[in-house]
Amino acid sequence: MMPSSFGSVLIISGPSGAGKSSLIKAAKDRIGDFYFSISTTTRPPREGEKDGVDYFFVDRETFEADIKAGEFLEYAQVHGNYYGTSLKPVREALEEGKLVIFDIDVQGHAIARERMGDLITSVFVTTPSLQELERRLHGRGTDDESIIKKRIDNALVEIEYITAYDFLIVNDNFEDAVDSFIAVAKAARLKKGRKQALHFINEWRNGK
Amino acid sequence: MMPSSFGSVLIISGPSGAGKSSLIKAAKDRIGDFYFSISTTTRPPREGEKDGVDYFFVDRETFEADIKAGEFLEYAQVHGNYYGTSLKPVREALEEGKLVIFDIDVQGHAIARERMGDLITSVFVTTPSLQELERRLHGRGTDDESIIKKRIDNALVEIEYITAYDFLIVNDNFEDAVDSFIAVAKAARLKKGRKQALHFINEWRNGK
Repeated sequence: MMPSSFGSVLIISGPSGAGKSSLIKAAKDRIGDFYFSISTTTRPPREGEKDGVDYFFVDRETFEADIKAGEFLEYAQVHGNYYGTSLKPVREALEEGKLVIFDIDVQGHAIARERMGDLITSVFVTTPSLQELERRLHGRGTDDESIIKKRIDNALVEIEYITAYDFLIVNDNFEDAVDSFIAVAKAARLKKGRKQALHFINEWRNGK
Repeated sequence: MMPSSFGSVLIISGPSGAGKSSLIKAAKDRIGDFYFSISTTTRPPREGEKDGVDYFFVDRETFEADIKAGEFLEYAQVHGNYYGTSLKPVREALEEGKLVIFDIDVQGHAIARERMGDLITSVFVTTPSLQELERRLHGRGTDDESIIKKRIDNALVEIEYITAYDFLIVNDNFEDAVDSFIAVAKAARLKKGRKQALHFINEWRNGK
């Protein structure tokens, strides 16, 4: 057993419509105990979305006050709305030795890398092609044309960041993608931050 | 499916006696098709070891001639013997889109990182403690005392390099370690080199 029970971090990013949420949902009972970081956002809930489950939905004033208070690990504006990750529950989960999973965008990933890069394993999930992304976004029927256009414009930018990620899952066959995601999540648990690795080395030599 | 079928690399390192070979053997039918890089060495075969299976066994003159010919991806001297990795079969396996698995030491890992870092996922395997390593080395009964002492001295150096690896497997419960190794190997397949990632991005946009 690891002498240090400090946790690690898995970041999943990729265009809206690539299937990130479906992957996490399908894998969630097969990757052991983890804390899924719930984002805070100023965008209005979509139909069926619940506060404290899908997001913490807050107004702009609250969000900006929390930014000033240093409450966010990272935050960004996407499609004109704020999205951010509260730091406190993440820190608590890591101290409990849990794997913390973040579904964040490429900007969030870059910032998290700076703040806690040695704890992070990251995976980018995408469709096999841009056309397939367009097809899925239209097929899901939750967004109007102007939002789909924004998502596609955003995807064209995000896709450039693949090289910043440890792993790439091309979500073509869903079951294969789930298997891949499970492997990445299990591997992510084996990531040791620098501090924890040095602690382990010390105990290893001294025969805890 | 990935438009580019170029392979990727998994490096496994750790002290002699930590169980690297046993892990690979136990996992080998559960991680898909891969090429296991066979090292070339000048050390004499142990009882039961076969040329072209365990190692390519060559003499010092042959090894040094191959170094001069640029035939090695990496090589190092450990316990007074040369160990090295021939480049040609690795290149061929990568071009066939295979996962290439290397069982190499911390020096070899560092050199391979410089040469093809963007293709590499790496995992360090160790016992839970130094005492447990000593116990296993004595228990395996293949080495005399002076060799065991050398392996332990070497382990005390190698353990310092954990922080250079992506993942750490503490081989305490063997079945857990096998599961972890399988996850890391499956994840390693999802690693894309920079060149392959840029190729993918281009095809993704243009709708191959």
